[in-house]
Amino acid sequence: MVDVDIALAEIVGKEHVLTGDAIGEDYTHDEALGAEGVTPAYVIRPSTSDEVVAIVKLANENRIPLTARGSGTGLSGAAVPRENGILISFERMNSILEIDTENHVAIVQPGVTLHELEARTAEVGMVYPVYPGELSASLGGNVATNAGGMRAIKYGVTRHHVLGLTAVLGTGETITTGGRFVKASTGYDLTQLIIGSEGTLAIVTEAILKLQPRLPLTNTVLAPFSDLDAVTRAVPKIVGSGVGPLILEYIDGMTMGAITHTNDLQLGIPDEIRESAQAYLVIMLENRSQERLDEDVEQVGAQLGELGALDVYVLPGPSARRLIDAREKAFFTAKAAGADDIIDTVLPRAALPEFFAKVTEIAQANGTFVVGCGHAGDGNVHLAVFQKDAEIRSRVLHGLFAAGMELGGAISGEHGIGHEKKAHFLELTDPVKIDLMRRIKQAFDPNDVLNPGVLF
Amino acid sequence: MVDVDIALAEIVGKEHVLTGDAIGEDYTHDEALGAEGVTPAYVIRPSTSDEVVAIVKLANENRIPLTARGSGTGLSGAAVPRENGILISFERMNSILEIDTENHVAIVQPGVTLHELEARTAEVGMVYPVYPGELSASLGGNVATNAGGMRAIKYGVTRHHVLGLTAVLGTGETITTGGRFVKASTGYDLTQLIIGSEGTLAIVTEAILKLQPRLPLTNTVLAPFSDLDAVTRAVPKIVGSGVGPLILEYIDGMTMGAITHTNDLQLGIPDEIRESAQAYLVIMLENRSQERLDEDVEQVGAQLGELGALDVYVLPGPSARRLIDAREKAFFTAKAAGADDIIDTVLPRAALPEFFAKVTEIAQANGTFVVGCGHAGDGNVHLAVFQKDAEIRSRVLHGLFAAGMELGGAISGEHGIGHEKKAHFLELTDPVKIDLMRRIKQAFDPNDVLNPGVLF
Ligand SMILES: Cc1cc2nc3c(=O)[nH]c(=O)nc-3n(C[C@H](O)[C@H](O)[C@H](O)COP(=O)(O)OP(=O)(O)OC[C@H]3O[C@@H](n4cnc5c(N)ncnc54)[C@H](O)[C@@H]3O)c2cc1C
Ligand SMILES: Cc1cc2nc3c(=O)[nH]c(=O)nc-3n(C[C@H](O)[C@H](O)[C@H](O)COP(=O)(O)OP(=O)(O)OC[C@H]3O[C@@H](n4cnc5c(N)ncnc54)[C@H](O)[C@@H]3O)c2cc1C
Repeated sequence: MVDVDIALAEIVGKEHVLTGDAIGEDYTHDEALGAEGVTPAYVIRPSTSDEVVAIVKLANENRIPLTARGSGTGLSGAAVPRENGILISFERMNSILEIDTENHVAIVQPGVTLHELEARTAEVGMVYPVYPGELSASLGGNVATNAGGMRAIKYGVTRHHVLGLTAVLGTGETITTGGRFVKASTGYDLTQLIIGSEGTLAIVTEAILKLQPRLPLTNTVLAPFSDLDAVTRAVPKIVGSGVGPLILEYIDGMTMGAITHTNDLQLGIPDEIRESAQAYLVIMLENRSQERLDEDVEQVGAQLGELGALDVYVLPGPSARRLIDAREKAFFTAKAAGADDIIDTVLPRAALPEFFAKVTEIAQANGTFVVGCGHAGDGNVHLAVFQKDAEIRSRVLHGLFAAGMELGGAISGEHGIGHEKKAHFLELTDPVKIDLMRRIKQAFDPNDVLNPGVLF
Repeated sequence: MVDVDIALAEIVGKEHVLTGDAIGEDYTHDEALGAEGVTPAYVIRPSTSDEVVAIVKLANENRIPLTARGSGTGLSGAAVPRENGILISFERMNSILEIDTENHVAIVQPGVTLHELEARTAEVGMVYPVYPGELSASLGGNVATNAGGMRAIKYGVTRHHVLGLTAVLGTGETITTGGRFVKASTGYDLTQLIIGSEGTLAIVTEAILKLQPRLPLTNTVLAPFSDLDAVTRAVPKIVGSGVGPLILEYIDGMTMGAITHTNDLQLGIPDEIRESAQAYLVIMLENRSQERLDEDVEQVGAQLGELGALDVYVLPGPSARRLIDAREKAFFTAKAAGADDIIDTVLPRAALPEFFAKVTEIAQANGTFVVGCGHAGDGNVHLAVFQKDAEIRSRVLHGLFAAGMELGGAISGEHGIGHEKKAHFLELTDPVKIDLMRRIKQAFDPNDVLNPGVLF
């Protein structure tokens, strides 16, 4: 039996191994509302891939649970460590190794934040177009959760922009997958399998990300509707028009009230319209020419009118930015208002009206308050659930997930399963698939050291 | 021991089980140039998913190799059956089950051809934008090879348009994956893992495909260059401009000569330019407004001039269609000219000039003639190799693949490994990755009945 303290200190240097009281509270949890904090036996902060390999080998040989942590902004408890485990924090592996403007890729270490990547790509007129709402999140965390965000309607999610990975299996072996190219048909796609695996298959130490040319111009349209049904019915029509929105979000009346109030947002909507508006669509368009952008805005505006919008507002730049920002922080608004859980069920977008009917039914039957907003264009609904009683809350969540799945959806569109949604995932998913996933897990991590307790 | 003949006949009806001389020559091979035909013990033509399940169970229980076949247009020998095996042909499972214009998806059986899907989506103003060169190919085959094609530069490849699958594991268990939505973070992405697995992990019995609004207008620009280097250097610049080409192909002088001659194509290029042109770029643009399209064509034309094109031709519709068609059939032109193999290495697009220098070196050192064309925007090079001697040919292929991989590429961009490229794949790939892939294979197909001999 090795002395783990000594071995870890030898790998990264003593000052980068934290134990006991030296472990800050922040390391014990992510942003999931329901998750209880857990203090791990060790927090370790490697600075190179080789150090990561050594850590994984040590963990594997000694059967010590190993949980990766990016920025801890996750919403499923997946970065919450095990009590007897090691938390491997990527805060020091935070370099953008290269911006390759010929192949249009960025090579990043896992601890790089979206903020940093945004700043660096802007300098060269490129963009990494995946914008999950919290830009302090790390790319490693994004890869592990298959993060989405508002712009997925146009650009897709993390999965569509990660071209290759360097990753350490549970055995301590390193693989490199993919490359600076968008397609291959050369054996199984290990890149795609690792994406979204929540740190249970491999630890990511480097990623190749696809960049796009940055389009310089955007414009934002806000449309209040008298009911949520009209909003959800409008969504497929706007997508079908070919105008290609960058953002297509819905915000229900309650949530709009809360975020405008909290953020002191003046959107210039007359009182009588605000009072009869039960839901809103927010549509952002982007283009490389002002003329085209103006045309697109006009087209969308006209279409929204036909689809029953109470009015259509083209928001001035600063208001638009503040609204989008407030929408992105809706999670914190819900949290401040006392929300007990947040879910992000994904559905066929045309099933949204039926789903919302179910949501109302389940909420009312359980005396629970459920409000939300979400990536309407992707059928991805973020619902804040206000219910203090854990048992009732679990019943409500189960009901909501089951309703979504009956309509052809899945439990999570982008936040993942983690510890928080695991019970529902295991209950509601076909056991044949769960067994298959377990065997895949075995193939990567035979001793179950990588994030045990997450997913399974 | 069951009587396999009787059992198979019970599953699909006697008339849909072929043996001995009743097995047409077509079933014994695909389009791979090097592959030798193999007559299987049985060809079976199921009409339902349940029949497929029964066939897989029978094969699994009796350890009979089972090879799926779509249209047999594959270029890696992956649909070539085993001598003692069953070939499962999807010619009768060829229904488009639904075109869902609200969620913008098509639900198809695996035997549906791209041709049929193109016709049906056109009726409703939608498009399945993946256009691998051979429209008689089946969607099942497309999924299994992760088919690409010319439009990948804009829309991505099959992987980016398959949202869900119904698939039968090697055990005979059925799973459904994904759904009518573009993203999820709910366990491992089994859809993505099955895509590109060449029939070795699961048999696909249904697929959910993402559709796009069909843009009505296209225009095509042809630009001759005095050398291939100038062409490959132009590619990243055009991609970087943000004009978003639908097609961005290169064709070398030899190949252009051959395809224009074979197809009797008049492109209106003056003799003196044709004589000094060593390579061509073909760029197709699409848009939903004529004005925007014209602007884009002008922009690309000007840029091509700056990048050293000898001239720029905007091709009239019929010429453009005939050129694209001829390019798509370049494979048959090469075959008719006596090509002995075709490869489709993929590389970082900026590495193309260096790669072509290597190609020339390897070809000359081995007295071999190598010409080509390809999806330049994706760094995906299709090379026809003329070398009768199998040993030298294998050395040349090995050299080309190794050169591509040294530059950060992969053996195949879209055709797959199959039987044909397997030796090179196993020699050139990190054994850690091969072992991991084998364990994944085990997880899906513990008795190795699904397409044994392909990949591994
Ligand atoms: C206000 C707010 C808004 C948000 N909006 C969105 C949104 O719109 N869309 C969206 O998708 N998410 C959203 N999120 C959730 C969160 O930002 C994402 O899940 C993000 O991807 C988490 O990144 P992180 O670095 O914080 O990861 P962490 O929370 O640290 O970890 C998340 C998971 O990744 C694993 N992990 C981290 N690094 C690695 C690595 N190097 N190798 C392997 N596994 C690793 C962890 O083990 C864990 O399983 C939001 C969160 C907040 C607080
Ligand atoms: C002229 C020409 C041009 C081409 N151009 C391109 C191009 O531009 N891009 C490109 O990517 N390819 C191209 N190809 C190759 C070929 O068309 C593709 O590989 C296509 O995807 C094969 O489809 P298929 O139905 O013919 O499959 P097949 O050849 O029948 O089979 C291919 C593989 O799919 C498996 N398979 C088939 N059906 C199923 C199923 N239901 N479940 C599981 N596995 C299954 C088979 O076992 C095999 O491994 C071209 C071919 C030709 C002849």
